[in-house]
Amino acid sequence: MGWRLAILVVGSVAFDAIETPSGKRDRCVGGAATYFSLAASYFTPVRVIGVVGEDFGAQEEGILTRRGVDTRGIEHVSGKSFFWSGSYMKNLNEAQTLNTELNVFQSFSPKIPAAYEDTEYLFLANIDPVLQADVRSKMPKVKMVCGDTMNYWIKDHSENLAKVLPMLDALLINDGEVKMLAKENNLVVAARKVLAMGPKSLVVKHGEYGATAFFSERSFTGLSGHTPFRAPALPLAEVVDPTGAGDSFAGGFFGYIASQPALTPAVFRHAMFYGSVMGSFAVERFGTERLQNLDKSEIEDRFALFRQLSHLE
Amino acid sequence: MGWRLAILVVGSVAFDAIETPSGKRDRCVGGAATYFSLAASYFTPVRVIGVVGEDFGAQEEGILTRRGVDTRGIEHVSGKSFFWSGSYMKNLNEAQTLNTELNVFQSFSPKIPAAYEDTEYLFLANIDPVLQADVRSKMPKVKMVCGDTMNYWIKDHSENLAKVLPMLDALLINDGEVKMLAKENNLVVAARKVLAMGPKSLVVKHGEYGATAFFSERSFTGLSGHTPFRAPALPLAEVVDPTGAGDSFAGGFFGYIASQPALTPAVFRHAMFYGSVMGSFAVERFGTERLQNLDKSEIEDRFALFRQLSHLE
Repeated sequence: MGWRLAILVVGSVAFDAIETPSGKRDRCVGGAATYFSLAASYFTPVRVIGVVGEDFGAQEEGILTRRGVDTRGIEHVSGKSFFWSGSYMKNLNEAQTLNTELNVFQSFSPKIPAAYEDTEYLFLANIDPVLQADVRSKMPKVKMVCGDTMNYWIKDHSENLAKVLPMLDALLINDGEVKMLAKENNLVVAARKVLAMGPKSLVVKHGEYGATAFFSERSFTGLSGHTPFRAPALPLAEVVDPTGAGDSFAGGFFGYIASQPALTPAVFRHAMFYGSVMGSFAVERFGTERLQNLDKSEIEDRFALFRQLSHLE
Repeated sequence: MGWRLAILVVGSVAFDAIETPSGKRDRCVGGAATYFSLAASYFTPVRVIGVVGEDFGAQEEGILTRRGVDTRGIEHVSGKSFFWSGSYMKNLNEAQTLNTELNVFQSFSPKIPAAYEDTEYLFLANIDPVLQADVRSKMPKVKMVCGDTMNYWIKDHSENLAKVLPMLDALLINDGEVKMLAKENNLVVAARKVLAMGPKSLVVKHGEYGATAFFSERSFTGLSGHTPFRAPALPLAEVVDPTGAGDSFAGGFFGYIASQPALTPAVFRHAMFYGSVMGSFAVERFGTERLQNLDKSEIEDRFALFRQLSHLE
């Protein structure tokens, strides 16, 4: 795979404390950019921009570098790394946040290493939309931008978010976020309203039910006004830890696209499936454990399982 | 289509009063057997066993007979027909029952016309499991039995329901019912527990997210222990009235199976898609309005849309 196909992800690199019905971890490396990077690393070279504190050392960074992720964009500053603590004891489909300590992430000001300036694929993970827009504006060679956001930015920073949405080729959010953003309960109507806010496509993640992509009428070679496309999720007998499933979906989705010569409808469809595949791996173990040690044949086997699950022939 | 392929459905034929965000109907012909019959009638001959009161006349029965449904098994007795009143104003995904008047349905004792005794396909719609078992036992020539149930029977009539489950080739219920029946929150584990109760397959309906089929290890030519199969639902911009969507799914599903020479994995998969297709039509208009006047080309066009929605190629 060529170096020109690298994806740059900007987002959180963090420590998580997680409890689920399957057990708990007091401290594991997490953050949206971490999950995204690991999932995407099976498809294409990945570069990360983030910030960590003194508690994030060579051992932690090794989780990314062992997968070939370029971590030169991870800034090390004094203080503690972003820390999140969550529980899935009451509902495996929705984290209950017990504690959030922004720490060094509070004053995160993304700096783009010179070596990253030729990046053509950019993923704006869930961070302040002001920072998302800032990073985008500093990357003139970018060909395709995907992004995420969350209820906090939708509710209280909607004006800033509105400036980011038109920059996106694909917005990847979940059902609840789509409906909140559109102020509309029907998914299809909500999707149309969100597309009218600017993104060329919208990938709605339904958790255990898969994901649906909607396409705007605006310029998007081969995909403008395309009918929706739905990818299934794998019915799993045990979800050990749902943390990072959405970011892993995004990593598989965008990583696959970046590995392909052109974005055709077929590539978009396959990317949805690879997103679901990487999400299904992520939840099988705590934190990023499963995403650290996959091999390409496991990914292809699961892709085949998804096809078998959902296809008529 | 040959007469030997007729499906017999036993269940409610009723009047419904429905209000949804799209409007209301004070009185329309409904009931599980009605929705099932209309949906299945596009695939194979259908026979109905049910009971109605004096308020159900030739005009009402015409809704079924115009679709070629054999209504000789609908018993007319003195009194009023089953009446249900429901609202979807608060939640389009779940009816709020405002009123249920069982009326003549309270003492429903299914009688099988001699002309129905050669039926090979039997659908036990959502009625008292004692009646379901009774009908099954009186149909010695039946080759395949599918059935439905609901929370009321699961909670308060579980011993009777336990006698019906082993009679079923396919149990068609929704997510909540599967989890309630299995006393288990994970869908895959719950599905395994339900299959251990006796049905050879389990089709779990996920509403707007489609449906998933699980297969037991027990004798079921070509399908024993098969990997799960998931069919999508169509993302619809307006759900006018969700009433009967599940029964319409069952009608399309079983109607398609009965129209085919053998139950292969491919037939089962196509049946899941046709179930979703008929469910998607049902919700486009109030009551059975949309199901009364479809033509085969509309069904095939929508089937193609479902394939396009969900398939990689």
